[in-house]
Amino acid sequence: MSWIGVDWGTSSLRGARFDAHGAVLEERAFPRGILTVPKGQFDAVFAELFGDWMEPAGARCLISGMAGSQQGWREAPYCACPAGPDDVAARLTWIEAGRIAIVPGLSCERDGVPDVMRGEETQVFGALQLLGIEDGVFVLPGTHSKWAVVQAGRIERFTTLMTGEFYALLRQHSILARTLPADDGALVDSAFDAGVAHALRSPGLTQSAFSVRTLSLFERLPIADRPSYLSGLVIGEELRSRGLGGDAGGSVVVIGADALTRRYERALGRCDVRVRTVGAAAGWSGLWNLARRLAA
Amino acid sequence: MSWIGVDWGTSSLRGARFDAHGAVLEERAFPRGILTVPKGQFDAVFAELFGDWMEPAGARCLISGMAGSQQGWREAPYCACPAGPDDVAARLTWIEAGRIAIVPGLSCERDGVPDVMRGEETQVFGALQLLGIEDGVFVLPGTHSKWAVVQAGRIERFTTLMTGEFYALLRQHSILARTLPADDGALVDSAFDAGVAHALRSPGLTQSAFSVRTLSLFERLPIADRPSYLSGLVIGEELRSRGLGGDAGGSVVVIGADALTRRYERALGRCDVRVRTVGAAAGWSGLWNLARRLAA
Repeated sequence: MSWIGVDWGTSSLRGARFDAHGAVLEERAFPRGILTVPKGQFDAVFAELFGDWMEPAGARCLISGMAGSQQGWREAPYCACPAGPDDVAARLTWIEAGRIAIVPGLSCERDGVPDVMRGEETQVFGALQLLGIEDGVFVLPGTHSKWAVVQAGRIERFTTLMTGEFYALLRQHSILARTLPADDGALVDSAFDAGVAHALRSPGLTQSAFSVRTLSLFERLPIADRPSYLSGLVIGEELRSRGLGGDAGGSVVVIGADALTRRYERALGRCDVRVRTVGAAAGWSGLWNLARRLAA
Repeated sequence: MSWIGVDWGTSSLRGARFDAHGAVLEERAFPRGILTVPKGQFDAVFAELFGDWMEPAGARCLISGMAGSQQGWREAPYCACPAGPDDVAARLTWIEAGRIAIVPGLSCERDGVPDVMRGEETQVFGALQLLGIEDGVFVLPGTHSKWAVVQAGRIERFTTLMTGEFYALLRQHSILARTLPADDGALVDSAFDAGVAHALRSPGLTQSAFSVRTLSLFERLPIADRPSYLSGLVIGEELRSRGLGGDAGGSVVVIGADALTRRYERALGRCDVRVRTVGAAAGWSGLWNLARRLAA
């Protein structure tokens, strides 16, 4: 039996072929996120891009991410928290029985308001396996950042913050966009730090964001520094919202691509939070973590 | 001597002719905000639209708002807080000596970050005159809401919150836009209240805004309710940022157009804050408040 793992997100599609011990033998990536696939064409796209991997007898595939959303291949109902790998593995949505399955996302509820994730749960399960731990706070930065609390190997609860999306909105469509350069350029550490610091001492982003305008107006923020400062503001806002102002302490695991996790590491350092980072390997490790439970 | 008051903002231009006691004899409004006027054409636009009012010997004009910004008729340097009507009247920028003057905006500074207003200071001075008071907290809702603290007739300090702009960004450009109806429709009180309540118990808007998506996903927020709920979220976020969660108490004066001040009155009521409202008359009253100091 051979396993294939697929991470099918909103804007990208990646696949990996595992050996019998979960090591990645081969990887593929395509700009074929679910938004590019017309309803009813998911089978065909999958067959085109991964058909050869699925040819050997006993080949099986696990798919995580937005492929399981209403706009995806087939809706995979959310699994309610608390949920660990065993809970999720027991609630797969099978596209082809015993052959291709979609991993359900998770839901949780707080104060009568639901929250959801799709794909991040698999990355958290992967990070647990990679780090050999069963408890912790996991941060998955992005368009919609997730903060997940894990106890005894299960995700107890989580929170979504629209950090990356607010950055894009302010960057591209707000009055601040007029004062920003066309390209973000390289990160300016001092400007990023100043943004984080201002967000941490502000009551909220609708107030702190105006500082991009006023500091620019008074020529106290060079134009090349502004994207970094704004990035610091929105990431600082995320930390403030999580109660991490001052010297909060504690520790978190940040999962994601290098460029972004480095920014979080820098910002969390200001709050005296200890940080471990896990890269893209978390996704493959998570899919394998689920797959080996099915192989048993 | 006869006085004319002009409120020249970003997107609109309004004028009023006063009698000798500050009563408004006549009003005019044009869609000729500063963004529609090419640099160097402000004299001509003013002459075209208000030339007849300026013909009588002794006619004088005071202009407040963005006409004094870098993009306006002539830049009127900010007046630093604390500032009252006497301070502002002493720092006018004269376009024509003794005939046409621009009212300076105000600046203040907190934690090394400046804040600015242009036009709202005049509305606050008008509200003080209309209500016959010298102290209070003044709220001016809008694209960029202002909260001003007035002591002994002078604006001590103020804060800008980009409430209206965040509403527009989320409404038009975010992932939430896809789940909202084409038109806002009439305010749905219960949905607005639910948005205010959720924002007040949330740590910040980047988190609470995601509830529009999840409540929609779980079919707990009818489509017609969503714009009202989102409006409640951003106004609730403004109150939360001002420390008004729970039963904060106290009292404020809200200055603005009816439709918006009613929403603030409703949201502030939840926080047990007493509200007085002042409408568009505040602007004319404020210009007269300044003019009569010059006439003396």
